[in-house]
Amino acid sequence: MKTVRIDIKEAAEFLRENDDYLILMHTSPDGDTLGCGTALCGALQRMGKKAKAVCPDDVPEKFNYLFEAVEEQEFEPKTVVCVDVADTKLLGDMKEVGDKAELCIDHHVSNIDYAKRTLLDAESGAACEIIYYIIKELGVEIDKAVANSLYTGMATDTGCFKFSNTTPQNHRLAAEMIERGADFVDINYAMFDMKTPGRIQLEQSALKTIRYYANGHIAVIFAPLSMVESIKGIDSDDIGSLASFPRKIQGVDIGICVKEKKKGLYKVSLRSSQKVDCSVIAQKFGGGGHERASGCSFDEGTIEEAALKVVEACEEACREAGII
Amino acid sequence: MKTVRIDIKEAAEFLRENDDYLILMHTSPDGDTLGCGTALCGALQRMGKKAKAVCPDDVPEKFNYLFEAVEEQEFEPKTVVCVDVADTKLLGDMKEVGDKAELCIDHHVSNIDYAKRTLLDAESGAACEIIYYIIKELGVEIDKAVANSLYTGMATDTGCFKFSNTTPQNHRLAAEMIERGADFVDINYAMFDMKTPGRIQLEQSALKTIRYYANGHIAVIFAPLSMVESIKGIDSDDIGSLASFPRKIQGVDIGICVKEKKKGLYKVSLRSSQKVDCSVIAQKFGGGGHERASGCSFDEGTIEEAALKVVEACEEACREAGII
Repeated sequence: MKTVRIDIKEAAEFLRENDDYLILMHTSPDGDTLGCGTALCGALQRMGKKAKAVCPDDVPEKFNYLFEAVEEQEFEPKTVVCVDVADTKLLGDMKEVGDKAELCIDHHVSNIDYAKRTLLDAESGAACEIIYYIIKELGVEIDKAVANSLYTGMATDTGCFKFSNTTPQNHRLAAEMIERGADFVDINYAMFDMKTPGRIQLEQSALKTIRYYANGHIAVIFAPLSMVESIKGIDSDDIGSLASFPRKIQGVDIGICVKEKKKGLYKVSLRSSQKVDCSVIAQKFGGGGHERASGCSFDEGTIEEAALKVVEACEEACREAGII
Repeated sequence: MKTVRIDIKEAAEFLRENDDYLILMHTSPDGDTLGCGTALCGALQRMGKKAKAVCPDDVPEKFNYLFEAVEEQEFEPKTVVCVDVADTKLLGDMKEVGDKAELCIDHHVSNIDYAKRTLLDAESGAACEIIYYIIKELGVEIDKAVANSLYTGMATDTGCFKFSNTTPQNHRLAAEMIERGADFVDINYAMFDMKTPGRIQLEQSALKTIRYYANGHIAVIFAPLSMVESIKGIDSDDIGSLASFPRKIQGVDIGICVKEKKKGLYKVSLRSSQKVDCSVIAQKFGGGGHERASGCSFDEGTIEEAALKVVEACEEACREAGII
């Protein structure tokens, strides 16, 4: 199916003309997809529309506050909108619903153009920035709850304004969200700093599995099911946070984290320095993402084999980049 | 000595009228004092003035890039300016030089008014923001190197825009620094993410010493000399980074880190949630700092005794705040 690329004005017009929205957010939800979904849903509701924001996966507890932007409404959804969803494969059990999307709002270059209309801005560090401009265009006042949702997306997708996708616009919109009352201190503490005792234990265990390749330019850590199941009180979010760990070690250009999601299903997360584009590596294995943060999955073989396939591709990327 | 409080315009006028500057930065230097010193020194040099920025302590290697904003100049200094220095006690061996300061530019409420003129703006998240406005007032173009210095102060003193001292202005100035070419990705990686293998080992060792008080609202970690000396390749900066560790644990409102700086000299760092003002606690022991990040020192007794004194004051603060 060929999509029609639309701009902010056209997306706002579409949202003004339709009603009864089902807003879909991607599986393994992060702050950006949840921020987009709840902010857009809240804004549509404030216009008198019916809307609900739904994630196919359980939403980690630390994101609960985002749903303060939304009211629960009972209605039969008619118009499907996907936010921050590059591919309907990322909708899990709701893939078929997503395949009928009327509108997709996204910032991933890897978007597969599955929706009838696509508003794509790959220059936006967070998809929440696009949602901000749509809400502005719709003329809805951004209140504290919506500001919290938008701020969360802007902060989380840029690693708290640290990553290369951070733009001057990103900072200026964050400034406005703070002025609109966003609880940025609590949000940032919950998103970036707070660790449960379980998470600390998990990090220590995973750190013991570390292996280096390519003269220390590549580091891999492992989180097999046996490790994850032996630690009490950790959730998918604790496990997800491991992804960024190996890249933090001095000298590492590509950090890899291999997690066993369930028996025989391995999720590989990649993080890279500015020298390597790790979305290209993930794409080789049917995955995707951003230049500095990407991921892919393997549903066969062992956790070792999954890791080694990715390491080989990373070594090749390092050679191409002249790192080794 | 009574100081005269001056504003941005008056500070710029003073800097325009004088020459041969010695800019002093505080001991245990951080990104803000070094960012201020190098940015101001660079700006004065670009005006044709003679200036040097000096720190009484060795500057950790990761800050080397800041000195790209400055040229080395040979001259006899005449005019002493202190930046981000609340008290001349923070100048170590250079205390006496600092006592003759003509100008102090600072953002600490705890500033003791030691200089002849003081430009103090406690509303600025980073002292570098004040330096930014002075440079603007001086009419000096902010180039990439000076932007790197200013960005570093703005980012580090706000914990990368996470802490409660972050303001909309802080974000907007960061946006401008990015536009002026600041290498924010490399800076943030070096300041916040990169860890040496030694630092990782230190964190793991310190974590084993953790003790909880006040039903888990207070956590203390220890870094005695014996621990620090047993780990290879760590510097003062690695040790300093431990300060923020205990506060990250879920449920902790005051995180304390007690480091043995040299035999019998203990440096205590405090980090607190929004419920407690930890600068007040540090002040009880002759220290100071900010509401959420403060510190004090003890030069007698044992490391245990130093910790217990601070823990008692923290328990009292928790009771006053109604936490326990």
